[in-house]
Amino acid sequence: MIDISQLNYSSADFWQQLTHLLAWEGVSDAAVTETVRNILADVKKRGDAAVVEYSCRFDRLNVSTMAELEIPLNRAQAALNNIPVVQRQALEQAAERVRRYHEHQKQDSWQYTEADGTVLGQQVTPLDRAGLYVPGGKAAYPSSVLMNALPAKVAGVKELIMVVPTPDGEVNELVLAAAAIAGVDRIFAVGGAQAVAALAYGTETIPQVDKIVGPGNIFVATAKGMVFGTVGIDMIAGPSEILVICDGKTDPDWIAMDLFSQAEHDEDAQSILVSPDADFLRRVSESIEKLLPTMERQEIITTSLNSRGALIQVADLDEAIEVANFIAAEHLELSVDDPAEMAKKIRHAGAIFMGRYTPEALGDYCAGPNHVLPTSRTARFSSPLGVYDFQKRSSLIQVSAEGAQPLGKIASVLARGESLTAHARSAEYRLKS
Amino acid sequence: MIDISQLNYSSADFWQQLTHLLAWEGVSDAAVTETVRNILADVKKRGDAAVVEYSCRFDRLNVSTMAELEIPLNRAQAALNNIPVVQRQALEQAAERVRRYHEHQKQDSWQYTEADGTVLGQQVTPLDRAGLYVPGGKAAYPSSVLMNALPAKVAGVKELIMVVPTPDGEVNELVLAAAAIAGVDRIFAVGGAQAVAALAYGTETIPQVDKIVGPGNIFVATAKGMVFGTVGIDMIAGPSEILVICDGKTDPDWIAMDLFSQAEHDEDAQSILVSPDADFLRRVSESIEKLLPTMERQEIITTSLNSRGALIQVADLDEAIEVANFIAAEHLELSVDDPAEMAKKIRHAGAIFMGRYTPEALGDYCAGPNHVLPTSRTARFSSPLGVYDFQKRSSLIQVSAEGAQPLGKIASVLARGESLTAHARSAEYRLKS
Repeated sequence: MIDISQLNYSSADFWQQLTHLLAWEGVSDAAVTETVRNILADVKKRGDAAVVEYSCRFDRLNVSTMAELEIPLNRAQAALNNIPVVQRQALEQAAERVRRYHEHQKQDSWQYTEADGTVLGQQVTPLDRAGLYVPGGKAAYPSSVLMNALPAKVAGVKELIMVVPTPDGEVNELVLAAAAIAGVDRIFAVGGAQAVAALAYGTETIPQVDKIVGPGNIFVATAKGMVFGTVGIDMIAGPSEILVICDGKTDPDWIAMDLFSQAEHDEDAQSILVSPDADFLRRVSESIEKLLPTMERQEIITTSLNSRGALIQVADLDEAIEVANFIAAEHLELSVDDPAEMAKKIRHAGAIFMGRYTPEALGDYCAGPNHVLPTSRTARFSSPLGVYDFQKRSSLIQVSAEGAQPLGKIASVLARGESLTAHARSAEYRLKS
Repeated sequence: MIDISQLNYSSADFWQQLTHLLAWEGVSDAAVTETVRNILADVKKRGDAAVVEYSCRFDRLNVSTMAELEIPLNRAQAALNNIPVVQRQALEQAAERVRRYHEHQKQDSWQYTEADGTVLGQQVTPLDRAGLYVPGGKAAYPSSVLMNALPAKVAGVKELIMVVPTPDGEVNELVLAAAAIAGVDRIFAVGGAQAVAALAYGTETIPQVDKIVGPGNIFVATAKGMVFGTVGIDMIAGPSEILVICDGKTDPDWIAMDLFSQAEHDEDAQSILVSPDADFLRRVSESIEKLLPTMERQEIITTSLNSRGALIQVADLDEAIEVANFIAAEHLELSVDDPAEMAKKIRHAGAIFMGRYTPEALGDYCAGPNHVLPTSRTARFSSPLGVYDFQKRSSLIQVSAEGAQPLGKIASVLARGESLTAHARSAEYRLKS
């Protein structure tokens, strides 16, 4: 039975209600933390041997060497050759579009020369090596392999190491096929905190990487948090969310299904619809009631909508924009007449899906942009996963002998103002008078 | 007495020795963690009242309202008017150069239209509001105010809130002057974990920000780590480091002073010199012995050089580059004939100081690039603080009705392959046949 929250912008306590609805605290379990800390320390110390042991224990495998846990690239290529051709084509077309979009994100080095010959600039280089965590078992998503691997490859990362647990020895053929398409360089059948540790510290067999990306369960997320600093990590994601703004002129069944597409992810996912049209909100409710019994994941959707969903009535689209900028949603769908105009007023969102023909699902799989997006209001300060996450910058400073004169004097004054006299004298040595 | 480590690339255990020399583990003290956790929770709950209490206790102030802790902008302007004119000019010239360099880092929105009318792009927006932590007391650095504030302002951040503790009521005039020059919008005389909490959660008086940047002590660093996710943060920095590569043709006194300029920061700072010229390494040692007694911070420099410094002999500059890429230094000085050519081979460094007339000190204060740089080998995956840290991206996806046909089919196949049928049906609704 659907009982989705109904909010109205005009209520005195609207913002309070909305804040309450959005509130999300990640689990912080002392037992998980302790377990992960031990696994990290053990893998750091014992390398391959520890990874093999944990894999046997947690994934119920029966192997004795790390070599047995490496999945050869020709095995991934075989998966690609063996999956149904319609799936292969869909994966390849999606990969091609994702690659093309991400090419636009590449950042180039630049520099400029000042009148006295001083050169200033920024040198952009790819990471040497990246690690890609891919969940195993039921939540194995080939699209996630493409979305995490392709930006790294476009950035020019030389070696991309994928880890994916194979509980009871079960491998996901679509995931392997996606790895082959994306150009992953090595694949290991390991998962959990032990996989994160192996990537962060390196073992005899698994090379140390510079950054680890990709989704995982609470053990993986906790491990990523702990190794941050030794390696880079992507954002630790909260539950997925969609905010749909609709003017009331889109088929309510479409909008209901768009809300479902978010809610079906898990019970904590959040689907919110904002509209100035009260009658439309009612019709979407009816569509929800009507369509829900036809959904494979009816139970998850119901729980998600009842606990975290909402239908919000506003007076006009300006109020809707205000709500959207407060929520800073991971996915923002603008199902309105002039979405481009409205998008200009959006200050915070992970991805903006514009118009009635752009359901989130297209962006999740194949439109081109990345589906790894900032959740839980973090779009206020962070960005989709992109090529820029696999590039880094070095400042370039080449001061000419002439340029060192005025700059040395400024530096000397400021350094002495901070009582850093070695700084001052280092600058003063370069002065000619 | 100076007893700096001497390493030789040709030693069998060179890489092991180097790894040992570079090893750095940040302090992770359970007592600090607990203290900070309590302060954060208290400020989150009680707001201004808690901040006022902690400020009175830790900074030995005697105030009863938050309003008394706001430093008006005209007070900062007065500081700027009152400092010696040579300092004012140095700060203004440095700010102007830093601003000009950072203008080059601004990223713009982009989009492209496909043949079927589908529009894809990326919308770049500034953060709404940023918080800048500035240490008080002895480690008060006006240059740090400029380096943290100016990129935010260039990015277009509307409101920049600075917090700076004033122990015993003491304010640093140069810091206030720098705030006035940089265009800081509001200033509060609060520090420590309570300041970080106020910025992260907001209080009745201090507005919630979207990102907190700036250096601080272990309480501040721990607090920043804990509020990450609620707000963005910059990197949590380790001790400062310099790696100098010299071909032996720079005045050894200059190089010794460049090493000192890093070592004088604190006992944990790291200064390393690499050269293929054994005689030059010896001459720099002699310069160190000679110059050290003349340094104000002789003790700190001695401790730093003895415990963490090194002189490394290599066979040639190619080996030096290999060492530099392993160390991924925060500051890399290339004191050689053709530094531009050598810089192209550098894959990892925070900032590259090129040529004999570019000591690090110029970059620390006024060359233009930022002095907030990745430490402890994190230049392998991260970048200097920049305008890009105060901008974020939203993906733009506007699929045309025509474009929704092929994309809908691809998404449908992939979504069904992942058992996400609401995703599939949401895409299929947009299909016309």
